[in-house]
Amino acid sequence: MSLQSASSEEIPLARLFAPRSVALVGVSGDPAKAMSRPLRYLAERGYTGKIHPVNPRYREILGIPCHPTLAEVPGPVDLVLSFVPAAATAEVVEAAAKAGAVAVVVFASGFGETGPEGAQLQEQLRDVAARHGIRVVGPNCQGLMYAPSHLFATFTGAVDRELPPASGIAYVGQSGAVGGSVLDLAAELGVGLTAWVSTGNQVDLDLVEIARTLVMDEAVRVVMLYAEGIGDGARFTALCREARDRGVRIVLLRTGRSESGKRAAASHTGSMLGDDAALSLVCHEEGVLQVDDVDELLVGAIVAANPPAGGRAAIVTTSGGAGGLAADQCDLAGLTVPELSAAVRERLAPLIPSFGAVANPVDVTAEILSPKARERSLGEVCRILADAEIDFIQVVLTMVTGDAAAALARDLVRTLPDLPVPVYLTWLAGNDLTLQGRALLHEAGVPAFASVSSVTRAVGRLLAPVRERRSSTAESDDELMSLVRTTASGSAGDVLLDRLGVDHPRSAVATTATEAAVVAAAGGSFALKIHSPSLLHKSDVGGVELGVDAADVPAAFERLQARGAELDLPDLRGILVQEMIPSGTELILALTSGGDGFPSILTVGVGGVTTELYRDLASATAPVDEAEAEDLLRRLRGWPLLDGFRGSPRADVAAATRAIAAFSRLGAVTAGHRLEVEVNPLVVGVEGAGAKAADILVTTDMDGE
Amino acid sequence: MSLQSASSEEIPLARLFAPRSVALVGVSGDPAKAMSRPLRYLAERGYTGKIHPVNPRYREILGIPCHPTLAEVPGPVDLVLSFVPAAATAEVVEAAAKAGAVAVVVFASGFGETGPEGAQLQEQLRDVAARHGIRVVGPNCQGLMYAPSHLFATFTGAVDRELPPASGIAYVGQSGAVGGSVLDLAAELGVGLTAWVSTGNQVDLDLVEIARTLVMDEAVRVVMLYAEGIGDGARFTALCREARDRGVRIVLLRTGRSESGKRAAASHTGSMLGDDAALSLVCHEEGVLQVDDVDELLVGAIVAANPPAGGRAAIVTTSGGAGGLAADQCDLAGLTVPELSAAVRERLAPLIPSFGAVANPVDVTAEILSPKARERSLGEVCRILADAEIDFIQVVLTMVTGDAAAALARDLVRTLPDLPVPVYLTWLAGNDLTLQGRALLHEAGVPAFASVSSVTRAVGRLLAPVRERRSSTAESDDELMSLVRTTASGSAGDVLLDRLGVDHPRSAVATTATEAAVVAAAGGSFALKIHSPSLLHKSDVGGVELGVDAADVPAAFERLQARGAELDLPDLRGILVQEMIPSGTELILALTSGGDGFPSILTVGVGGVTTELYRDLASATAPVDEAEAEDLLRRLRGWPLLDGFRGSPRADVAAATRAIAAFSRLGAVTAGHRLEVEVNPLVVGVEGAGAKAADILVTTDMDGE
Repeated sequence: MSLQSASSEEIPLARLFAPRSVALVGVSGDPAKAMSRPLRYLAERGYTGKIHPVNPRYREILGIPCHPTLAEVPGPVDLVLSFVPAAATAEVVEAAAKAGAVAVVVFASGFGETGPEGAQLQEQLRDVAARHGIRVVGPNCQGLMYAPSHLFATFTGAVDRELPPASGIAYVGQSGAVGGSVLDLAAELGVGLTAWVSTGNQVDLDLVEIARTLVMDEAVRVVMLYAEGIGDGARFTALCREARDRGVRIVLLRTGRSESGKRAAASHTGSMLGDDAALSLVCHEEGVLQVDDVDELLVGAIVAANPPAGGRAAIVTTSGGAGGLAADQCDLAGLTVPELSAAVRERLAPLIPSFGAVANPVDVTAEILSPKARERSLGEVCRILADAEIDFIQVVLTMVTGDAAAALARDLVRTLPDLPVPVYLTWLAGNDLTLQGRALLHEAGVPAFASVSSVTRAVGRLLAPVRERRSSTAESDDELMSLVRTTASGSAGDVLLDRLGVDHPRSAVATTATEAAVVAAAGGSFALKIHSPSLLHKSDVGGVELGVDAADVPAAFERLQARGAELDLPDLRGILVQEMIPSGTELILALTSGGDGFPSILTVGVGGVTTELYRDLASATAPVDEAEAEDLLRRLRGWPLLDGFRGSPRADVAAATRAIAAFSRLGAVTAGHRLEVEVNPLVVGVEGAGAKAADILVTTDMDGE
Repeated sequence: MSLQSASSEEIPLARLFAPRSVALVGVSGDPAKAMSRPLRYLAERGYTGKIHPVNPRYREILGIPCHPTLAEVPGPVDLVLSFVPAAATAEVVEAAAKAGAVAVVVFASGFGETGPEGAQLQEQLRDVAARHGIRVVGPNCQGLMYAPSHLFATFTGAVDRELPPASGIAYVGQSGAVGGSVLDLAAELGVGLTAWVSTGNQVDLDLVEIARTLVMDEAVRVVMLYAEGIGDGARFTALCREARDRGVRIVLLRTGRSESGKRAAASHTGSMLGDDAALSLVCHEEGVLQVDDVDELLVGAIVAANPPAGGRAAIVTTSGGAGGLAADQCDLAGLTVPELSAAVRERLAPLIPSFGAVANPVDVTAEILSPKARERSLGEVCRILADAEIDFIQVVLTMVTGDAAAALARDLVRTLPDLPVPVYLTWLAGNDLTLQGRALLHEAGVPAFASVSSVTRAVGRLLAPVRERRSSTAESDDELMSLVRTTASGSAGDVLLDRLGVDHPRSAVATTATEAAVVAAAGGSFALKIHSPSLLHKSDVGGVELGVDAADVPAAFERLQARGAELDLPDLRGILVQEMIPSGTELILALTSGGDGFPSILTVGVGGVTTELYRDLASATAPVDEAEAEDLLRRLRGWPLLDGFRGSPRADVAAATRAIAAFSRLGAVTAGHRLEVEVNPLVVGVEGAGAKAADILVTTDMDGE
């Protein structure tokens, strides 16, 4: 369903993007002012709803009747654009509510971004909107556009050019300036955006809510998010999952990252994970493409809108050197440049001069540009390659200029749109000598990218596997949480481990040989110690026996009890029977929860010295099942230590993955809280010997809890 | 000295770049053909030497008299450009030699790149040139240009535009196509290249020799190298050092890397280092900037031509969002965005609206563009920032368009050239809406970069410290090499270790108690074993004593000798007295030499399991001194293991660095050979306990030796 055809019941914010009428309150009639632009854009760009300028200073603007107040606008108003100063905005919102509008876009600055006074105005604006049930975009924003309804309710100068047809790509971000750049740079590549929203100070509608609306729009295939902050993790996670379910790709550019997050800084593993680990994990698992700069945002989105099914590249170039560079770039991005079959090479051969190459990269040479070689079509080469065992074609042009460039562009725009695989075109030349060719590509909506690596990086990252769909991760279990808190305050972790179903060494104070035998019933090796708080150096007085076989435990009990009697201890409470942990590979397990709505993070690492020096850790959002637990272990560089490294026996990986999966289920319960639970170490014995948690530790003394 | 003013004695290839006359043999008079361009470029672009077209089909071309043969050209000819087909080229070279030319540029293809027949023509060309002592550029190349002499001896279409003034940046590469792109993209940024050479098949002059010539030219500050292969490592290393000595920065883009190198694949550490490790190390140590793609090559070179003295950035932007992104990019690149002093902020305040920011990033807001704010100059903001404690200014413009953009550009070009720190400008907008502003910047030679991250990455990498200058690394020592070979064929490494001055456990077969005492004279703990080849299980028959204190060695010797006598062994040769290595931190040391002219690589790593799983290795070209050895150790993630990790005693780092430095000196001798020498492990005891090499192993059975 598209926003344009949806009712507000079907998609709540549909009317914001496809209003039947727009009132522009305080719009300027002075064409030199930025605040005059929205009216002009609406009027010029085919918006078919009613347009009502509202400003007592004009009778009409651009030939459209202008009303002195919103109340005097005839007929219903769906959307109000407010251009009045900050202090007068709340009034406009009230009037908009009275006029039956669903939303107000507030362009004015002078709110929360300027200081305490502005913050107060912003609070006031929030209250008024909430009271009247009217939605607000902004304040301090640059508005929005929605191509299907020709709604250009923005003053970004980027709209001051011919915009290419909508591509299914949307932009949502706090910043209108960054958004304007994205809109303009996309247009320069021949790519029109379907929707564009600057959310500004986000007094009401934030980028997550806007993005969720766009994700529901069948006209949208890719959402670019520019985020200065993400807010509640649960809503963001839900957005990512919904986008994935609907086959919409999110490309995320965040800023201020060095300042943000700082979650879990107090804990051991947490500090190793770094800021924003949960956000990054959610993105990684749900297929959200995270990028670092504006150019990456744009190229990522364009490639995501037309993605290949796999990583096999065919490279076609007019220069052997450029072809080699492109192959290198594919390699760096984890893509392959497969050999072409003899059949394909045979079909290519007549099209390519003898000093070119029909291998992959295919070098058609500059010869293909000479007037006498016009029957040698680069488009035809692409058509043949599209039949080969490849997933996409990377065309790399160097100094193809002037008429030759125009001819080549004509050839390409004739061919590319029909091909069954995506073709990405990189043109390593300036604009001056290639204007005509670029204009043809632009008109056909074929982007000419400026570098190969930006494309291959995007392709490589878009092909990264997502995590299999799971049910929601957060659940409530008061009893378990209370057990977690008890453990946090110093109780022995055995009870918690038992409750989780994680094996640990058995241990009990026995007062009879029979009790001792019960502790040792499951076999193993034991330490027995006289249990008497006043006895400090038990070993020195023969109060300890180590390495006692299970079968010998009753006899050892008798011996130590007799010794205890000899020593005449005032506080002899029995004999402590402790299972000794057999040697094995040590792992560290941790669950880190930020209490910020994001899922808990399960981290698995190789324990001991390695943990601190090599940070050999693998993480996933909790919980995980056993297969996923094994996958985490396999991602560790230290995995060979479990897998029979240098001929040593294989560790009990099955027991380890059972323990990890069992432990991770706690993450569903801790997700709402700010804490960390750590098993350190989990000792994994040889195959069949099990895996036992030596200790479990709960840390809650983190900032904010 | 510039090439233009140098004589051939001063700089051997000076005449190639600044010939007094040029003959164009076989040049086309048909303006539709690419091979007509060089004559036109020479004639149109101000070359002041004599120009002689040579072609029997024309009496004149472009109004310049044309001669039927080279022999008929009047007066001396310095440079010949040959446009004749491959098969006729050798003749042209002979004629050129007769005419007294210093060099011939061969444009024709159809040589080595096409198959055996072409390869034969290429060999013939090489022979003729060598016989006549004439230098050849090409074949299969696009020629060269040198701006100071207005020599445009190329047919690259990139010259078909107005070229900006020379910037001190040069391009040298096999590929003329990639070179053409670089030339054109640089011009688009307002940056003219000083020199440009496509070396093609490199039958004679290769890119290293051309680059060395340009490095000697005082008109050149940066050399971009595009390399499909580097050839001899020694020549390349010498080029890098010479460039560094002369303050010329090399920016290197290599292609075909996945195919290349494969050096040292047979060895243990070698395979961990990966291909081209020596090349990369040389680049790293000498300050050569290695890049991965054409755009990085260009931005890297432009920044290198105008580099900051340090990593402190001031960010100035018209958008808070873009400023935040730029700050993130600085952070990612290891640069800082320091707070500005109160004094600087006070000077900035009047120029910036209240809702902007005088912090760093400085957000001048879009307000600065409004006509009424024209006295608020972005240039003035930059001028103030240039006085602050920063090293460079990064200006980030978003959708500044139309007249505002032109006004801003005028303001910037007025200010920036005089500032004492470099200013890098990124403009996040397409061309269409910014044509006038861009034209102004272009004219002033102020590049408008397309992304912030490309600039910050280049700045960050250009600031990486280079290694301190050392003397040449290769030396000859036949005796030592013969010792290396003996060790390779199985001899005990003790002699080699002694020769290198690397401590190792003492060990000898003693036949008297006195001899045994000599072995143990320096103290320590020893193992003594009956030395009899026929005795297989020495321990079972009491033939071994372990952990014997030095003082007790003679007595233990007597006991074992007596036991040997009892056993009546037919081949009792004495008692083996072996020093036991005290426990300590295990390191692995390796010297890898490719025999390809590059220096040997010294690699130091944490030994044991860690080496294989975590590849905790640090490398430098050998030899290193003790300070450098310690620096390598400190670069290991496992350094804390030597430095008193978790309260354990500090290791004998001084002894370790002595051993490493001593071992590394072998690298100077092995550099010309293809082999690897490995000490595994070097056991480093606690402080004062020394460091001992348990074993030294030489591998020579690597591909090619």
